[in-house]
Amino acid sequence: MVPGAGFRVVEACQWKVKNAGYAENSTSGVARDMLHQHSFEVSTSGRGTYDVTGEVQRAVADGGVGQGLCHVFIHHTSASLMLCENADPAVRLDLETFMAKAVPDGDPMFTHTAEGPDDMSAHVRSVLTQSMLSIPVVNGRCALGTWQGVYVWEHRQAPFRRRLTITIQGE
Amino acid sequence: MVPGAGFRVVEACQWKVKNAGYAENSTSGVARDMLHQHSFEVSTSGRGTYDVTGEVQRAVADGGVGQGLCHVFIHHTSASLMLCENADPAVRLDLETFMAKAVPDGDPMFTHTAEGPDDMSAHVRSVLTQSMLSIPVVNGRCALGTWQGVYVWEHRQAPFRRRLTITIQGE
Amino acid sequence: MVPGAGFRVVEACQWKVKNAGYAENSTSGVARDMLHQHSFEVSTSGRGTYDVTGEVQRAVADGGVGQGLCHVFIHHTSASLMLCENADPAVRLDLETFMAKAVPDGDPMFTHTAEGPDDMSAHVRSVLTQSMLSIPVVNGRCALGTWQGVYVWEHRQAPFRRRLTITIQGE
Repeated sequence: MVPGAGFRVVEACQWKVKNAGYAENSTSGVARDMLHQHSFEVSTSGRGTYDVTGEVQRAVADGGVGQGLCHVFIHHTSASLMLCENADPAVRLDLETFMAKAVPDGDPMFTHTAEGPDDMSAHVRSVLTQSMLSIPVVNGRCALGTWQGVYVWEHRQAPFRRRLTITIQGE
Repeated sequence: MVPGAGFRVVEACQWKVKNAGYAENSTSGVARDMLHQHSFEVSTSGRGTYDVTGEVQRAVADGGVGQGLCHVFIHHTSASLMLCENADPAVRLDLETFMAKAVPDGDPMFTHTAEGPDDMSAHVRSVLTQSMLSIPVVNGRCALGTWQGVYVWEHRQAPFRRRLTITIQGE
Repeated sequence: MVPGAGFRVVEACQWKVKNAGYAENSTSGVARDMLHQHSFEVSTSGRGTYDVTGEVQRAVADGGVGQGLCHVFIHHTSASLMLCENADPAVRLDLETFMAKAVPDGDPMFTHTAEGPDDMSAHVRSVLTQSMLSIPVVNGRCALGTWQGVYVWEHRQAPFRRRLTITIQGE
């Protein structure tokens, strides 16, 4: 089993829909520029990957943007975001194995150790991966490739609540 | 020679131009918000880097956006995108050498091996680099630095067709 | 002390404010789409991290965008951008230590050595980190997490002037 499976989104808040439309005097063929912003939290249960593809696609569907970009941001420095192969869970297990070897917990070269052996390694893993993703919106959906999923990658061993913000701009 | 040179763009499709202008009743000084989306495929001939700077600049020029952002996305998890030094091909050869050592093909720690020894290493390389780039558009051009080129980095040994989407937002 | 502290922004230029508003005939509830672009240079004094969070927040505040995205771009391939823990300087020192070991200067496997032993390692470090960041703007500010700072990461040993462009899109 992939570590981190079985999380839940614990809070959905701050739906903001700003629709810069032209109200009654809009003319046919003139698009309506839209901006949507949506913050939520993901409750993680230790190091591992957490699939948020559904949450991202739902935000795009709810927002009503047809064409544009969907931006996902994580407000933390010891968890990150990843576009990753979504079919074989072994891919994400192997990524953990790779990171455990490339950036070992408790490496004696690290001096920032206040929160334990997985503290500094989590920061390095975050810097080597992504704090933000942006994905084209095409025909009202995130145009992910067939094998692309959107994951939160929790790098700490303890459970955390991780805040994400989705921003969709388009028309 | 840099592996991967000599590719060709095999398909250009899905030009979408959405111009949220104000038609006849626009007032002077009011900008016209524009969104362009352009998907195309790059035919790769094995592991290596493929310069798509020209394709990106052409999309920006054709789109007619003066100021804004140009976003490039690759719809795959075993090839990625890179902004890289564009003058000395040795830089990209050295990047291959670095990756071959940092993420060796056929590393026995990998379990996702169904498609061969370059399968899992390609996923790791993709996660350590970029699936998307966004670049400022200034005065109708991608404002790349003097030495910055945009490259598709094919991480698989076999030939593939890789789909990219360019999204330009601005005015 | 963190290497790189004490830099100064040497030049602020190219403020462009494009306000796609509806002028006098705007109706209540209709937002004003805005695009701001701001280029400036950071004078670095050798390898290390340079906090530009204040400059980024100032650009957002000056731009007047309430909701949207703030995009930061560095026009170079041997310096990069990083979102990093901003409280304990040991985190950034440990990141230097990690990179010095993972991508050693003067590694004999590198052939691109014209500018010295930190030339190719700087390109690799740039490719493994970020040339661009985008951050949600919420209520007129970059919605960074409590512990997130925005840093230029100079990878060369000599002093350089590094050009950045901030692009803010929203309303």
